[in-house]
Amino acid sequence: MIFRQLFEPESSTFTYLVACSQTRDAVLVDPVVETCERDLAVLAELGLNLAYTLDTHIHADHITAACRMRALSGCKVAYPAADALACADVHVSEERPLAVGKMLLQPVFTPGHTDTHHAYLIDEGGTPAIFTGDALLIDGCGRTDFQNGDADALYRSVRERIFTLPPETLVYPAHDYNGRRVSSVAQESARNPRLGQDVTLEQFRAIMAGLDLPYPRKIDVAVPANRECGGCPDELVAELHAQGGKSPQG
Amino acid sequence: MIFRQLFEPESSTFTYLVACSQTRDAVLVDPVVETCERDLAVLAELGLNLAYTLDTHIHADHITAACRMRALSGCKVAYPAADALACADVHVSEERPLAVGKMLLQPVFTPGHTDTHHAYLIDEGGTPAIFTGDALLIDGCGRTDFQNGDADALYRSVRERIFTLPPETLVYPAHDYNGRRVSSVAQESARNPRLGQDVTLEQFRAIMAGLDLPYPRKIDVAVPANRECGGCPDELVAELHAQGGKSPQG
Repeated sequence: MIFRQLFEPESSTFTYLVACSQTRDAVLVDPVVETCERDLAVLAELGLNLAYTLDTHIHADHITAACRMRALSGCKVAYPAADALACADVHVSEERPLAVGKMLLQPVFTPGHTDTHHAYLIDEGGTPAIFTGDALLIDGCGRTDFQNGDADALYRSVRERIFTLPPETLVYPAHDYNGRRVSSVAQESARNPRLGQDVTLEQFRAIMAGLDLPYPRKIDVAVPANRECGGCPDELVAELHAQGGKSPQG
Repeated sequence: MIFRQLFEPESSTFTYLVACSQTRDAVLVDPVVETCERDLAVLAELGLNLAYTLDTHIHADHITAACRMRALSGCKVAYPAADALACADVHVSEERPLAVGKMLLQPVFTPGHTDTHHAYLIDEGGTPAIFTGDALLIDGCGRTDFQNGDADALYRSVRERIFTLPPETLVYPAHDYNGRRVSSVAQESARNPRLGQDVTLEQFRAIMAGLDLPYPRKIDVAVPANRECGGCPDELVAELHAQGGKSPQG
């Protein structure tokens, strides 16, 4: 397995590159439109073929690079089937994991930040790793006050679907705002101040209800764009066609 | 590869179990005498054969389980060759890595906490991982005020030998006092408050000189015992022989 943790500083988003070292097929988890070209350069440098983009959920804080990646590379766009996005080529679910080369990314339904959020577990013989999206962050979690967010659902998702994984399982979140990069199930279940072992559901509800966060700056642009897989503008598609680039359908 | 991160709460020490999934041979990095039986139970549960114990350095805060493990399991005791311990069966160095089944643990000479300290790098096809001992802790580092500690040497060790590894390399320290479990080269090189990118050698010297730490509680017992690989008492050896257990020479 080939692995890279890439960072987009404006939205503090981690994009994960995971590739099969045998077939050279790659997937980008949660790619960001602003760093699309950077990510493609990393793929080229590593000699990898981008097979898929894969998002954990409909983001409100940045625009996915899914559609743009498809236009530029010919990859397929994968999304949780629960999002029912017409723009997606592949619809994953717990029953329909994503095969990338000889690897499998196993979707784990983890609603609460959004009602269709999925984490992705990869367990290829070494230490397992889970891309937790905005469900579980290092010492934190995603907010639950928009996009059908639900604190009770998030508490159950993290406690019942993530903290029940083997303790060494590596936790790779979709964001960190303090330069942290990786955690583990053992670490988060022991000391996450919102969702760790000492926090009851009632306490978690109170924490989330009391956050008093500002209205997300980009939500009114990002959510509609992401419901179109990043809303690759017609002009880009036309321009790429004129240049002899691949069509947005791959 | 099979991997477990085990914790000894009194000295807040992590013991790492690493095993070859093909041969079932295992090594325990920095085992602690108090948790010897617990670790052996984990090995038995996983159906593993303990081939070696391996210490990163002569610890001052706990007694290694090396000699006791050898008496109880027949494993071999591995130590940095630079420690020149007569009690060790195997003497590792950068030129003499440790083969465990089909895996290789690569010693990385990282003096500064002690003058013979070694970290161990494992790079078996997935994301590399380094057991950093007391050279590099999460958001910290080992003290440099005894056992020929040397702040300048530690700064160079971490900056030149650990932070030059691929950024995704997982950092598994020998201790954490706050429930943290894992970091990465990217995380520590960016934000370690003692050794991260913004800290100059002069600043690091000043930080380490100003720590004003108490005299280590166990040092006068632990260091002499650890210079005998944990100093397995004759009574234990005799008792094990009487019970038909393996000899301390394996």
